[in-house]
Amino acid sequence: METTTRALTLEQLAKILGGTLEGPADRMIYRPVPAGSNDPEGITFAASAEYLEKVLDTQVGVVLAPIGTPPSKVATICVANPRASFGQVLGMFQRPLPIEPGIHPTAIVSPHAEVSATASIGAYAVVEGNVTIGDGTRVYPFAYIGEGCRLGNNVTIYPHAVLCQDVLVGDRSIIHSGSTIGADGFGFVWNGKDRNFRVKVPQVGFVDIRSDVEIGALTAVDRATAGSTILEAGVKLDNFVQIGHNCVVGAHSVIAGQTALGGSSSVGARNDIGGQVAISDHVQVGDDIILAGRTGVTNQLTETGAYWGTPARPIGIAKRIVAVIQKLPELSRTIKDLERRLAELEATKK
Amino acid sequence: METTTRALTLEQLAKILGGTLEGPADRMIYRPVPAGSNDPEGITFAASAEYLEKVLDTQVGVVLAPIGTPPSKVATICVANPRASFGQVLGMFQRPLPIEPGIHPTAIVSPHAEVSATASIGAYAVVEGNVTIGDGTRVYPFAYIGEGCRLGNNVTIYPHAVLCQDVLVGDRSIIHSGSTIGADGFGFVWNGKDRNFRVKVPQVGFVDIRSDVEIGALTAVDRATAGSTILEAGVKLDNFVQIGHNCVVGAHSVIAGQTALGGSSSVGARNDIGGQVAISDHVQVGDDIILAGRTGVTNQLTETGAYWGTPARPIGIAKRIVAVIQKLPELSRTIKDLERRLAELEATKK
Amino acid sequence: METTTRALTLEQLAKILGGTLEGPADRMIYRPVPAGSNDPEGITFAASAEYLEKVLDTQVGVVLAPIGTPPSKVATICVANPRASFGQVLGMFQRPLPIEPGIHPTAIVSPHAEVSATASIGAYAVVEGNVTIGDGTRVYPFAYIGEGCRLGNNVTIYPHAVLCQDVLVGDRSIIHSGSTIGADGFGFVWNGKDRNFRVKVPQVGFVDIRSDVEIGALTAVDRATAGSTILEAGVKLDNFVQIGHNCVVGAHSVIAGQTALGGSSSVGARNDIGGQVAISDHVQVGDDIILAGRTGVTNQLTETGAYWGTPARPIGIAKRIVAVIQKLPELSRTIKDLERRLAELEATKK
Repeated sequence: METTTRALTLEQLAKILGGTLEGPADRMIYRPVPAGSNDPEGITFAASAEYLEKVLDTQVGVVLAPIGTPPSKVATICVANPRASFGQVLGMFQRPLPIEPGIHPTAIVSPHAEVSATASIGAYAVVEGNVTIGDGTRVYPFAYIGEGCRLGNNVTIYPHAVLCQDVLVGDRSIIHSGSTIGADGFGFVWNGKDRNFRVKVPQVGFVDIRSDVEIGALTAVDRATAGSTILEAGVKLDNFVQIGHNCVVGAHSVIAGQTALGGSSSVGARNDIGGQVAISDHVQVGDDIILAGRTGVTNQLTETGAYWGTPARPIGIAKRIVAVIQKLPELSRTIKDLERRLAELEATKK
Repeated sequence: METTTRALTLEQLAKILGGTLEGPADRMIYRPVPAGSNDPEGITFAASAEYLEKVLDTQVGVVLAPIGTPPSKVATICVANPRASFGQVLGMFQRPLPIEPGIHPTAIVSPHAEVSATASIGAYAVVEGNVTIGDGTRVYPFAYIGEGCRLGNNVTIYPHAVLCQDVLVGDRSIIHSGSTIGADGFGFVWNGKDRNFRVKVPQVGFVDIRSDVEIGALTAVDRATAGSTILEAGVKLDNFVQIGHNCVVGAHSVIAGQTALGGSSSVGARNDIGGQVAISDHVQVGDDIILAGRTGVTNQLTETGAYWGTPARPIGIAKRIVAVIQKLPELSRTIKDLERRLAELEATKK
Repeated sequence: METTTRALTLEQLAKILGGTLEGPADRMIYRPVPAGSNDPEGITFAASAEYLEKVLDTQVGVVLAPIGTPPSKVATICVANPRASFGQVLGMFQRPLPIEPGIHPTAIVSPHAEVSATASIGAYAVVEGNVTIGDGTRVYPFAYIGEGCRLGNNVTIYPHAVLCQDVLVGDRSIIHSGSTIGADGFGFVWNGKDRNFRVKVPQVGFVDIRSDVEIGALTAVDRATAGSTILEAGVKLDNFVQIGHNCVVGAHSVIAGQTALGGSSSVGARNDIGGQVAISDHVQVGDDIILAGRTGVTNQLTETGAYWGTPARPIGIAKRIVAVIQKLPELSRTIKDLERRLAELEATKK
């Protein structure tokens, strides 16, 4: 694990984080590590007393702890918010994937593309015609930027991402490796007579990705049939998310892995959508809604709140349903017993 | 959104579609748009009175409407089948991804491959030995066409698709970006003594994709252990579909996103299979069957019809089950109440 | 299907497999085929009398059958373990994807990478700085081996696999096409004031893949936030598996397609995990556990055994619950009937 070459002393770290050091000022720290790690060159954090206890048993290089934490055998830097300070440390040790400024000699850039002088186009990237690429934008190796795409400033397109055609990407947005943006939506019609032949509905719309969006690895956002499939500002998609044609995902909504939005469905702003969720074609979901993992939304949901289950129900109700389901074998026996006892009573009455 | 450069006047459109124009003959239309769009340069359609009402409130350039629609403030072209005519319009505005005829100088084509003179092989494509590529077939940048693959005529392999080895693709079939066809099936055996070591079963079979098949983005079709994994003519797979080794998908069946067919399972002809469905290993599904989203098929299904749930049940029964599930907390209380009342009756009887 | 050019006579096959031939010694066999195939140039196997009967109706070239199988119209080679011998035959007909030894002239290998003289780096592969690649390791076309990756000996990286950064891969491990290893984990924090802005948590950890691991096509293993996401020795992942940041998968565990492990979850050794399973963030699963398809694990599971359902229950209980669920409409009617009858009894009592 010697590849992270950045190193700081405890004294330097305490100064950068504005914290109070209890430990050897010249100890070198090479990497952030999770709580519980024994790495003597690592820095970790303890947001609570419970985590702190876990850390005090280890040989970790230093722990970020809340102000007022008493000295112990583990070096500490006391800070107001250990979690936030740890995030700052993570940022210090982050290394962007390497890429040279300018256009790599092996990249194939159409003469009809406009690439900012401050953008980077990596080895074996292909940039088709009628494309614009903004300032500071990085297009990594093997990325395919199809005809008519428009990339804003400081966009990151990781290796092997594919933007098929007519994909707009706003400033600071990130698309991870292996994602396919702008493939045809899944649209076919019967030929009118029988079910033996399906005719493809041409898909000619756009994908409109606004600013500060992050799209995970191996995720697919289909182009619209006509018009645009839209990811509004600040949307975050995990890996293996399927966004169908003509969907709209509202600002700052987050969607976890393996979730699918069927064609022409939409979700509002600031939603938290769990993994393996499904939203049916043409269904609308409102703002500030939480969908727990695996929820199946088959009808419009407008009221703010948390939902679970298939069909989606308010989470309190869904949990009660699941609790009863667990008792079904017992309930079934109770019903049998009631039947027997009732039959006996009825018999005595005759 | 100025990248779609095709433009037609309303008069031209009416003539091509064989419709009657009510509106300015020289108005320019640049793109198809969804119903409800306000785009004054767009064309949309209204298949029903309900949609028409929605459109009449907009500034859209023109709407395709049923014959007999009265004139209004929105320009209309009246046609027999607005939806079908809109499909025709979509086709007019479709632009195939750009590719030059012939073999791009950066493509690496084995001397032992046979490529039709009318095929196109894009930048940085790799075509291995013992491959044949038919007339008019397009292989886009970064595609990998592995040893022993046979591509028919007018096949489209989009950027970054991978055909590992021994993949046959019939005429007019389409494979979208990021899909992997012909990777090893998932087969391991115990070493006979304990569970500590699994031995890989070599996977040496084919993938046999017939004509007019379309495979979405980021979909995987595994090669057979021996013999062939088969997608029959006209099959359409959405994104993230998993087709295990030795599966057979019958002609003209459609499979929506994130659905998985376990190894050696099969589905018949003309099936409609929803998203997130699972079909277990070795299970057979018959012809003309509809599986609603998330259905889990664990046993053979032979009778034509629609199914839902896990295990799969005829959809009417499945819906009744789900309806009762929603009432379980109430039913549970009713049972408690019955118990109490029955105990009272029993007490008075003694 | 003429691409498999290897051929053996029945006599040669019988000798290699140590079996007894009943049939024409000079018949040529060109490929293994599934049981039931009619291929006169194919070899298949019959592990049981039931399969043997199926094979005896065909024109297959030869069948591997248990010792003592009587002669019939189909040629047989009798062996102690027909299934194991068929596995051996599969291995004989396996052709590794072609790759030249050494570094292909179009591969871009950083001068700061160390590549063994016996490794193969394919066309258009990119190998970044501070990478080591061991003896006999094969990196196929379009693979991206990011900065700081360490590949052991005899590793196979198939076309279009992406190792983003800081990915360690142990000896003999295999990564199939289209997989993305080491993309950022899905971590965001609120900005502390409202839900309008999410801040990315930098992801700076490793992916640590041990020896004899196999990762299917289009699978994603995210890098850790800090520390490592770990796949221990002998782990096998199918296609479309999602392994979140900081997960640990124990030695020799097998995970089927479309299953997701949420961030910081872990599973123990020798587990069998079915398809479309979900394990929630931070949840621990013990050793020697079987999770049936679609199980949803939301709480720690420590006891060895088989589980099913959401929430996960011991499989016997889960099956009883599902059995009662199938009868719910009937149970609901029974409850209604009990209510009516009880009300009658109560009325007569008054």
